[in-house]
Amino acid sequence: MTETITVIPGDGIGREVVPVAISVLDTVGDFEFEEYDAGDAVYEETGEALPAETRQAVAESDATLFGAAGETAADVILPLRSTVESFVNVRPARAYPGVDALRPETDIVFLRENTEGVYAGHEDRLSEDLSTLTRVVTDSASRRLAEFACEYVEGEGFTVAHKANVMRETDGRFREAVLDVAEERGVPTEEVLMDAFATQVCLDPAQYDVVVCPNLAGDVLSDLAAGLVGGLGLLPSANIGEERALFEPVHGTAPDIAGEGVANPVATVSSAAMCCEFLGHDEAAERVRQAVLEVLADGPRTPDLGGEATTEDVERALLDRL
Amino acid sequence: MTETITVIPGDGIGREVVPVAISVLDTVGDFEFEEYDAGDAVYEETGEALPAETRQAVAESDATLFGAAGETAADVILPLRSTVESFVNVRPARAYPGVDALRPETDIVFLRENTEGVYAGHEDRLSEDLSTLTRVVTDSASRRLAEFACEYVEGEGFTVAHKANVMRETDGRFREAVLDVAEERGVPTEEVLMDAFATQVCLDPAQYDVVVCPNLAGDVLSDLAAGLVGGLGLLPSANIGEERALFEPVHGTAPDIAGEGVANPVATVSSAAMCCEFLGHDEAAERVRQAVLEVLADGPRTPDLGGEATTEDVERALLDRL
Ligand SMILES: CC(C)[C@H](C(=O)O)[C@@H](O)C(=O)O
Ligand SMILES: CC(C)[C@H](C(=O)O)[C@@H](O)C(=O)O
Repeated sequence: MTETITVIPGDGIGREVVPVAISVLDTVGDFEFEEYDAGDAVYEETGEALPAETRQAVAESDATLFGAAGETAADVILPLRSTVESFVNVRPARAYPGVDALRPETDIVFLRENTEGVYAGHEDRLSEDLSTLTRVVTDSASRRLAEFACEYVEGEGFTVAHKANVMRETDGRFREAVLDVAEERGVPTEEVLMDAFATQVCLDPAQYDVVVCPNLAGDVLSDLAAGLVGGLGLLPSANIGEERALFEPVHGTAPDIAGEGVANPVATVSSAAMCCEFLGHDEAAERVRQAVLEVLADGPRTPDLGGEATTEDVERALLDRL
Repeated sequence: MTETITVIPGDGIGREVVPVAISVLDTVGDFEFEEYDAGDAVYEETGEALPAETRQAVAESDATLFGAAGETAADVILPLRSTVESFVNVRPARAYPGVDALRPETDIVFLRENTEGVYAGHEDRLSEDLSTLTRVVTDSASRRLAEFACEYVEGEGFTVAHKANVMRETDGRFREAVLDVAEERGVPTEEVLMDAFATQVCLDPAQYDVVVCPNLAGDVLSDLAAGLVGGLGLLPSANIGEERALFEPVHGTAPDIAGEGVANPVATVSSAAMCCEFLGHDEAAERVRQAVLEVLADGPRTPDLGGEATTEDVERALLDRL
């Protein structure tokens, strides 16, 4: 049966890398694609960064593949994450054989809480001088994330990163809820303060495997891990909900190289592999991952990886291996 | 004239490294030292991690040198920072010739806002399920920090790191206040999102020099930089107020090695150099810094730097060079 994937190329290099992911998906499965707009370009045209019809389409699809948005990124991606009712942002950060990495032994999956923290963002301008933001942490969201983590690690343990020594009530609640669920399920855990994690992951990334953390911590720490594995051009992500999911590269629109045809499509293609897996096509997902591994090991490289290949060269190399 | 420095060794390796800093200060200047308690040990004895007399002494001294505290760290260091009315935490993170570093080209000074953000910490347990934290940002604190930054860079520019794309009102206020002050003073600035900074500083740390940021961002990003220069054993810090200041290594009590006599005293000795500078003894500060440079280049090394030297060996090497 043909499945429909909603695709939103967005802006900048999003428009160059999403088509590569579509070709790849076309090769490994039986999908239809419906394309929608979001981002700076449609904002300039219509005054809306996320048109209602795009949001509607995402709300009705099992899976959406998103490229990137420019200045309007937060206005696009945050509502989209909530449209798919995503409670976890899965962010694998691994180094690849053959790709220069500051820490080639890095192989970490961040499970980032995806609904609250500072992103729940109630902000107020209380006076001429003072503004506040109300950071929100609930037991229910923390437990939901922990349950996902327990299944995700398949019998292994995970690390909880937080700042409960300062945010005692909110991160304290997060920490306790996550550790409680893990204990109920018999899943071993370790914990680390998010600042200590930032040092430790540089010194010895191999000590971490799966890291569960609040929303903003996950944002910053996964971007840090991207720096250790050779940049954002490699990192995919999945925003998983109970019924739907949204897949996106961790990188942005890369305005410095957009339009030149040299964007690295690997992060988006790897996001497409996560999409296959979510839709139950494990074998297709594995084929895509294998092709990515092979191309990174000895195929053409885009300039962000020190090569001179174009996006199209990498696309051809990927399709050749599928 | 003899000046009095309040010293608080605290717990763990704090008790081993602070005496080294005292010997060093004794060699380069005319100081008296008054020692006070704070941390886990005094908490266990008295039920108070920060005794009133310690706080009183800090409130009355120009300069305090603090070692480290264990489990009670937040209960000690956060009130102490506010006791000296510190508005900025100055955190230099530089690699040293001769010391293994993931990124030897790192040489960044973080100017971390030191009074608000999530650290202003009004937390509430609003229901069985939900807790909140009110993050606070004021124009006055942001401008005060920016004014310090403008003087600090002496005609050069600085980078502002923030997350104003998500925390629009609070980090938006921070960002605007800092950029406004810099513009008024004719100081060039760049800005970067804190997550992008985490990637970029790994890929190319040389692009950053002085980084101005909110409180928690400064906590995490400076610890990240510590990972790039070889660990927390090297990083000093200064909590600067209008009239008083508190100096402390960025590291903690290192319970794994405490009591073994092998703690690296460099972070605390470098904090003492910052103390000399604050007290107007620039030449003494420079002598201490030079001794640290020389010892790190070819002197004895503690185990955290891959050597087998003891704290005492490093102390002797430092004193020999002064
Ligand atoms: C664009 C921005 C709102 C977003 C975030 O902060 O989550 C981005 O940094 C990311 O990590 O996907
Ligand atoms: C101990 C803790 C409260 C403190 C902080 O978060 O500021 C520490 O991490 C630091 O950076 O000095």
